[in-house]
Amino acid sequence: MSDPFFHPVSGFDLPRFAGVPTFMRLPHVTLDDPRLKDVQVGLIGVPWDSGTTNRPGPRHGPRQLRDMSTMIRAQNGATGVRPFEIVNCADLGDVPPNPADIIDSMTRITSFYDKVVAAGITPLTAGGDHLSSLPILRALARSGPLGMIHFDSHTDLFKDYFGGTQYTHGTPFRRAIEEGLLDPKRVVQIGIRGTAYDSEDREFADAVGVRIIPIEEFHARSPQDVMSEAREIVGTAPTYVSYDIDFVDPAFAPGTGTPEVGGPNSYEALMVARLLNGVDIVGADLVEVSPPFDSSGATAFLGVSIIFEMLCNIAAGIYPE
Amino acid sequence: MSDPFFHPVSGFDLPRFAGVPTFMRLPHVTLDDPRLKDVQVGLIGVPWDSGTTNRPGPRHGPRQLRDMSTMIRAQNGATGVRPFEIVNCADLGDVPPNPADIIDSMTRITSFYDKVVAAGITPLTAGGDHLSSLPILRALARSGPLGMIHFDSHTDLFKDYFGGTQYTHGTPFRRAIEEGLLDPKRVVQIGIRGTAYDSEDREFADAVGVRIIPIEEFHARSPQDVMSEAREIVGTAPTYVSYDIDFVDPAFAPGTGTPEVGGPNSYEALMVARLLNGVDIVGADLVEVSPPFDSSGATAFLGVSIIFEMLCNIAAGIYPE
Amino acid sequence: MSDPFFHPVSGFDLPRFAGVPTFMRLPHVTLDDPRLKDVQVGLIGVPWDSGTTNRPGPRHGPRQLRDMSTMIRAQNGATGVRPFEIVNCADLGDVPPNPADIIDSMTRITSFYDKVVAAGITPLTAGGDHLSSLPILRALARSGPLGMIHFDSHTDLFKDYFGGTQYTHGTPFRRAIEEGLLDPKRVVQIGIRGTAYDSEDREFADAVGVRIIPIEEFHARSPQDVMSEAREIVGTAPTYVSYDIDFVDPAFAPGTGTPEVGGPNSYEALMVARLLNGVDIVGADLVEVSPPFDSSGATAFLGVSIIFEMLCNIAAGIYPE
Amino acid sequence: MSDPFFHPVSGFDLPRFAGVPTFMRLPHVTLDDPRLKDVQVGLIGVPWDSGTTNRPGPRHGPRQLRDMSTMIRAQNGATGVRPFEIVNCADLGDVPPNPADIIDSMTRITSFYDKVVAAGITPLTAGGDHLSSLPILRALARSGPLGMIHFDSHTDLFKDYFGGTQYTHGTPFRRAIEEGLLDPKRVVQIGIRGTAYDSEDREFADAVGVRIIPIEEFHARSPQDVMSEAREIVGTAPTYVSYDIDFVDPAFAPGTGTPEVGGPNSYEALMVARLLNGVDIVGADLVEVSPPFDSSGATAFLGVSIIFEMLCNIAAGIYPE
Amino acid sequence: MSDPFFHPVSGFDLPRFAGVPTFMRLPHVTLDDPRLKDVQVGLIGVPWDSGTTNRPGPRHGPRQLRDMSTMIRAQNGATGVRPFEIVNCADLGDVPPNPADIIDSMTRITSFYDKVVAAGITPLTAGGDHLSSLPILRALARSGPLGMIHFDSHTDLFKDYFGGTQYTHGTPFRRAIEEGLLDPKRVVQIGIRGTAYDSEDREFADAVGVRIIPIEEFHARSPQDVMSEAREIVGTAPTYVSYDIDFVDPAFAPGTGTPEVGGPNSYEALMVARLLNGVDIVGADLVEVSPPFDSSGATAFLGVSIIFEMLCNIAAGIYPE
Amino acid sequence: MSDPFFHPVSGFDLPRFAGVPTFMRLPHVTLDDPRLKDVQVGLIGVPWDSGTTNRPGPRHGPRQLRDMSTMIRAQNGATGVRPFEIVNCADLGDVPPNPADIIDSMTRITSFYDKVVAAGITPLTAGGDHLSSLPILRALARSGPLGMIHFDSHTDLFKDYFGGTQYTHGTPFRRAIEEGLLDPKRVVQIGIRGTAYDSEDREFADAVGVRIIPIEEFHARSPQDVMSEAREIVGTAPTYVSYDIDFVDPAFAPGTGTPEVGGPNSYEALMVARLLNGVDIVGADLVEVSPPFDSSGATAFLGVSIIFEMLCNIAAGIYPE
Repeated sequence: MSDPFFHPVSGFDLPRFAGVPTFMRLPHVTLDDPRLKDVQVGLIGVPWDSGTTNRPGPRHGPRQLRDMSTMIRAQNGATGVRPFEIVNCADLGDVPPNPADIIDSMTRITSFYDKVVAAGITPLTAGGDHLSSLPILRALARSGPLGMIHFDSHTDLFKDYFGGTQYTHGTPFRRAIEEGLLDPKRVVQIGIRGTAYDSEDREFADAVGVRIIPIEEFHARSPQDVMSEAREIVGTAPTYVSYDIDFVDPAFAPGTGTPEVGGPNSYEALMVARLLNGVDIVGADLVEVSPPFDSSGATAFLGVSIIFEMLCNIAAGIYPE
Repeated sequence: MSDPFFHPVSGFDLPRFAGVPTFMRLPHVTLDDPRLKDVQVGLIGVPWDSGTTNRPGPRHGPRQLRDMSTMIRAQNGATGVRPFEIVNCADLGDVPPNPADIIDSMTRITSFYDKVVAAGITPLTAGGDHLSSLPILRALARSGPLGMIHFDSHTDLFKDYFGGTQYTHGTPFRRAIEEGLLDPKRVVQIGIRGTAYDSEDREFADAVGVRIIPIEEFHARSPQDVMSEAREIVGTAPTYVSYDIDFVDPAFAPGTGTPEVGGPNSYEALMVARLLNGVDIVGADLVEVSPPFDSSGATAFLGVSIIFEMLCNIAAGIYPE
Repeated sequence: MSDPFFHPVSGFDLPRFAGVPTFMRLPHVTLDDPRLKDVQVGLIGVPWDSGTTNRPGPRHGPRQLRDMSTMIRAQNGATGVRPFEIVNCADLGDVPPNPADIIDSMTRITSFYDKVVAAGITPLTAGGDHLSSLPILRALARSGPLGMIHFDSHTDLFKDYFGGTQYTHGTPFRRAIEEGLLDPKRVVQIGIRGTAYDSEDREFADAVGVRIIPIEEFHARSPQDVMSEAREIVGTAPTYVSYDIDFVDPAFAPGTGTPEVGGPNSYEALMVARLLNGVDIVGADLVEVSPPFDSSGATAFLGVSIIFEMLCNIAAGIYPE
Repeated sequence: MSDPFFHPVSGFDLPRFAGVPTFMRLPHVTLDDPRLKDVQVGLIGVPWDSGTTNRPGPRHGPRQLRDMSTMIRAQNGATGVRPFEIVNCADLGDVPPNPADIIDSMTRITSFYDKVVAAGITPLTAGGDHLSSLPILRALARSGPLGMIHFDSHTDLFKDYFGGTQYTHGTPFRRAIEEGLLDPKRVVQIGIRGTAYDSEDREFADAVGVRIIPIEEFHARSPQDVMSEAREIVGTAPTYVSYDIDFVDPAFAPGTGTPEVGGPNSYEALMVARLLNGVDIVGADLVEVSPPFDSSGATAFLGVSIIFEMLCNIAAGIYPE
Repeated sequence: MSDPFFHPVSGFDLPRFAGVPTFMRLPHVTLDDPRLKDVQVGLIGVPWDSGTTNRPGPRHGPRQLRDMSTMIRAQNGATGVRPFEIVNCADLGDVPPNPADIIDSMTRITSFYDKVVAAGITPLTAGGDHLSSLPILRALARSGPLGMIHFDSHTDLFKDYFGGTQYTHGTPFRRAIEEGLLDPKRVVQIGIRGTAYDSEDREFADAVGVRIIPIEEFHARSPQDVMSEAREIVGTAPTYVSYDIDFVDPAFAPGTGTPEVGGPNSYEALMVARLLNGVDIVGADLVEVSPPFDSSGATAFLGVSIIFEMLCNIAAGIYPE
Repeated sequence: MSDPFFHPVSGFDLPRFAGVPTFMRLPHVTLDDPRLKDVQVGLIGVPWDSGTTNRPGPRHGPRQLRDMSTMIRAQNGATGVRPFEIVNCADLGDVPPNPADIIDSMTRITSFYDKVVAAGITPLTAGGDHLSSLPILRALARSGPLGMIHFDSHTDLFKDYFGGTQYTHGTPFRRAIEEGLLDPKRVVQIGIRGTAYDSEDREFADAVGVRIIPIEEFHARSPQDVMSEAREIVGTAPTYVSYDIDFVDPAFAPGTGTPEVGGPNSYEALMVARLLNGVDIVGADLVEVSPPFDSSGATAFLGVSIIFEMLCNIAAGIYPE
């Protein structure tokens, strides 16, 4: 049973449009707050997009995700789970990036997550572009390589860009595998699609044992079937979940920098997150929400709805019934 | 056979973007117009949103629905029904609400619909927020409780808000059941989803016999199957149809104040309305279209397409073949 | 010299797009926070728009104003004033309104401001529609009627609406004068323009001694000259400042519900606030920012720029050099 | 004193967002309505843009102008004129254009205005692109060439386009002068600016005696001074007023197809229309409002504010005090 | 193997947002360029919308399609086809239309395509409204009537508009059949839906042998099944492919002038184009993308994704493996 | 007299919305094109925004500026200058930046401009964020420090950001002065305003002799007077002109990342560029246009209008009458 201090403000008390917007209307607990030690799941923003190679914007993601998250209520309508009553959740604020220095920013992010891990908190991240996942994994995988369930339209396994540049949002998992942060045999990528430069990324995946489920296969099978395989791939060992909002079709998630048409709808987008049940999630992220390309906030609202589904599974994983 | 006076202007004569926009380009017949006695189906606007607890805007709904309705033509492409040739349809204008007084507005709405009912006209309403349905039901249910087929992502069965407030767009059907306007055993709610404050509304539904078909069940069954059950629940007795546009997924209907992701697509949205055939519809509404959140009018266009499907069934019900 | 606890976060440390957005990046101090006693100027949101008679939306104003206020820095570029170093400023959060009950909401607002006044804090309000000013004045004028400098395109002095409704955003100052909260002879209204229903409001103003400076006169004179007269009208006694963003031309402030063309530009909008120097400001508001009609936030950015100018004058008034 | 039948609906009775939107909320009187004979000033829509050479859209102008015109009230705030009490005004509906045939459309427009003129009604037109003025002038100038005060950023005096095409929105007044509909010596064009293909249009103007006041001269003089000259040029003989919304700077009127930066602000835009007092206006238009390029309606609202100023002068001209 | 001169610029070398935007980042080869003789597939823009009867805008289509096409990469992610390595592709620029003269524009279009055909180039057109297809077919069908696979929500088989007007975007294929450009027995129309004026178009289709697959049938069958029938209908003889973007549901393709709800999603939209494999495509178009109704470019991005699928099939048809 | 090869396409021949969009519809001449040697003024895009510290987007500037530049015609309406007939102008394409490496990007930019300078071409740049000016100056100032007329709301003279970061869009001219690229005594900054972190930048300016004309002084004097002083400061020696679009008030130029309210209007924005006459301009830029914050393109249209004014002065400077 969670501490009432960590319960979100209810829309029956304070209308959803009112109040300083924290994630899910949770208390804001900074890293130097004495209450930090009681937090079990921490929602963290990474307002950073220096890794984008096409259209920037995800640096504005955490703020809009916080704003739209005020429309999330306490109970999962489908499963009945009430995560905030199971575990102590808090908004840990944003990592302070350096928008003009990629290496410095990655150091800052890893350093922030090191403290989160040290405090025994499971981090649930709102990005930021997909490069954010790399410095997060550096903090989370200190005890050994993790498995990963990865929802995306791109593999993000490219070798480099622009004549040798190592760090972009198209390369994080290539680096993570090279650095031993991920166990490629326990990595599954779901929803891959769109036009491609070449097949270099897929050849790498094949070579190291990453399982790719392209969108054609996804549409041909059911979410249940696909997720059953995914759960089997990662097994019961510690696993990271990385959810790029461009996994979803751009009609449902227009606010992103590198959309690919032909993706899942919003119901499937929720279902795959709900079907993470039973996975040992040591951290998760929802990245690439780009508010300048969706001023209405529809993408962010879908994003926080997905985050809530992941949160329900993280909470249920901490205190299984 | 309808009176040609009540036929809409054709886009072959006057381009669709031209002319003073009435609903479906029908004649504007006010309540004191001598032609009122010939009207069989009246399209009515309720430009009112004082019941919204989150994002306002539906007060602007009727105007945008009128505007987009000029793109509706005379014949149902799927069924071939030509409603304007079957019954006399007219735009009865808008109910004049009092935007700064909820109780006064409800009185005005009921009074307006009392006159419509007295004239023997079946009302087809363009809202307005969902609280609008309550004062309408007060006029329509004077001879006894009605059945209701209700499309929505929310039950709108809550007890109260903000410490005891009785009238919001989250409470109309709780009030309607309490007031004896609806027979709960002949009420079915389809598409319910999203996060929830608690289960108080669903427990009430269970207690009084309202049938809830959540979205997971909807997606697992076919629209045909679901609507077959719905028609059985309401049977052949008088029935009201209430269609909240947030039943539809926000990718298809972004212009609404309390969206919930994971809903039906536009084809399913049309199908369920088409499958109202055979129901004894004594009135219907399409509510919660909020133009400030969809300046393009896409939501309103879907809304009027749904209204047209309902109109075809109302017309076919008045003069069954 | 202010307490460093109350200094805003700098954009050199945390980029402006990062962090939980409070007003001006100040600390969030709730009414039950022990630090409340140290606050001298409190920024307060009133997320409420039940008084709007035309297009709603200002309930969303405080959140967007907070968001855009993260682009405000520490020093007034024109005057060199650094308000956060002069006085202790804090974000006191939002008043919790009841969106479905006008009378209840007004009671809640007055009650909130009573506590602020009791704590010796000068309130600087981000609305909300203009009816918000009435319950605020009820708290601020407990020691006697105040003077008021009022920037607006409308007088908001109407008797009633919709057949006798007393409380709308067109009537607050009629009520405030009737209730003895304002001394009409110390009230000046600047920028009045647009089409009118009739002259009833202006006749009332003339009868009680309110000075109206219509936009034609404003454009013919300089801001300096107009503000010189305004300062003379209110004199050295306690004065409220009410700034309706629709004072400004809609090209500069599109996000508002009842715009009137032909208004001042943004430079004049800032200048009149800067020229409040020397006025004994006991409270001020910036109202009618309506985000649904300006998703880009340009109106809110102008709004917080004006709030900052007012804040500089309030700070300089508390500790005059 | 006007007939109360022709008074607009008040916002105190029916909120401005409610009701079927006619121009200024006036009664809709079609050309075959028996009340036509009582109309003195007719507001007419010309939903047509086949003459646009750049970005289309003005075909949607009349509908949006009607919509935004519901925010216009009964009295001129600056002059106190109440036009609807002086003369009988009505919305005469839209001319039915043929969007796929320019010549046919011009015939239809002239024919419509012939009937309006025959009924003794002064037409006040909401366009439509600027080519609309030509077929209107054909109906209005049957008794001899008219003078014209023309507000625009372009002269619209070009010889032809695209290798000889005679009828575009860049040529109407060249044609009108050639056809003897305008007396070039009584024509003044105000606000001309922007880059130019060449000087052919200005050379024609010089040759026939049209007076061009470029924007540099406009900004150097006052609106009062410029309009004083304009009134002198047209004198007391019958005069047409043509107001292209692109006369105004695009910050104030973004919704138009061929904007030119550096224009007048909205206050000047109103002033020049207000300063038409004393001119014998036999007809006027406000053209080139293009809703697809301004979904917020700001341009249309400025447009109807200008139309209202013109209407006040027309009314005052019919019954001078 | 294609000539490297005709390879598109890679996003690894020049970021996708950089450079003068040609279709797919291909070289711009004008009709008088000596390299024209080496081109095998030519991408051509027809910036023209004089045939629109409702909302204009497709004249802006080619530019936005070029812009968004810079996000298309070299390889089909699903099939692995690399079209630019199979055949020499180029951007042939835009046909210069006459926006104020329909007949002249059609002449110009046919003349342009005559030259393209004469150079042995297969044209792949980015419209433009659907009337564009008629003058293109006049050039392509000089050797005899073609078959056609037509994706659309409308039949575009109407007799005439507005009292006899022959050429609008609702009539091109009626004219094409009358002129002997299409063999109606080898024409299939897929996705037809929406309200209808009457059944005149469908009766014509039945009379001449055009096969219509309405949306209800499309949704009941699979894309594979439908396309299998389509391929059978056109057989192995020369065939034109015409793809109206309003075939797709407006949630996925909002930027079009005459949307109809209830259509296919983006995955189905791609699939039907991918399933054109084996058809002898002598030309293809993607029409009715209207940027003013989708400033984000989402519709154009879907459009170019579809064009790319068609291009892959054209390339594979020229050099079958 | 210029070579007709370098004349832009006329809107009388090809409508402005048609064709592959190059700057001003000029020929696209790449650095390896044999025609390069004939170019006198080169329009160059720098699609790069890695220096932005707040809201990114200027990487998309060059494309939108090219698009909107198609609305620029051949002749300056105010001065009659026809620049394309005086000098040979061409679109030299975009510099290829490396969006994930600031230092590499600066090297690429300087290298590109070195070639331009070597070819004897005067570069006129469309940015890009303001950091772009630094690597450009490195190429242009190889023969000694330049003077600079700088229009902006910020000084861009800051020492560093985020704890020592040297290269952001807030530091280029500090670096340029340190590197000896600019002669601070021949530098004037016009329009400075907005809130400030501190006065460190202004103290540096004072110390080295940079003349700052804050917005208050600008509004108090006339553009003529201010520009007269500016021309005097730079004198007759070689001078760079750097124009940040945020110099202009955000109502006129909303599409920028760090707007400041209270700026000049569009007429003044044009005038100051027109009043550069007589200055020996060796290069100029227009930077910080950010399309994601202005999807309508209004900012870009103002931007290209300003570029055209600068071009007229550059042309007139090359061949003075």
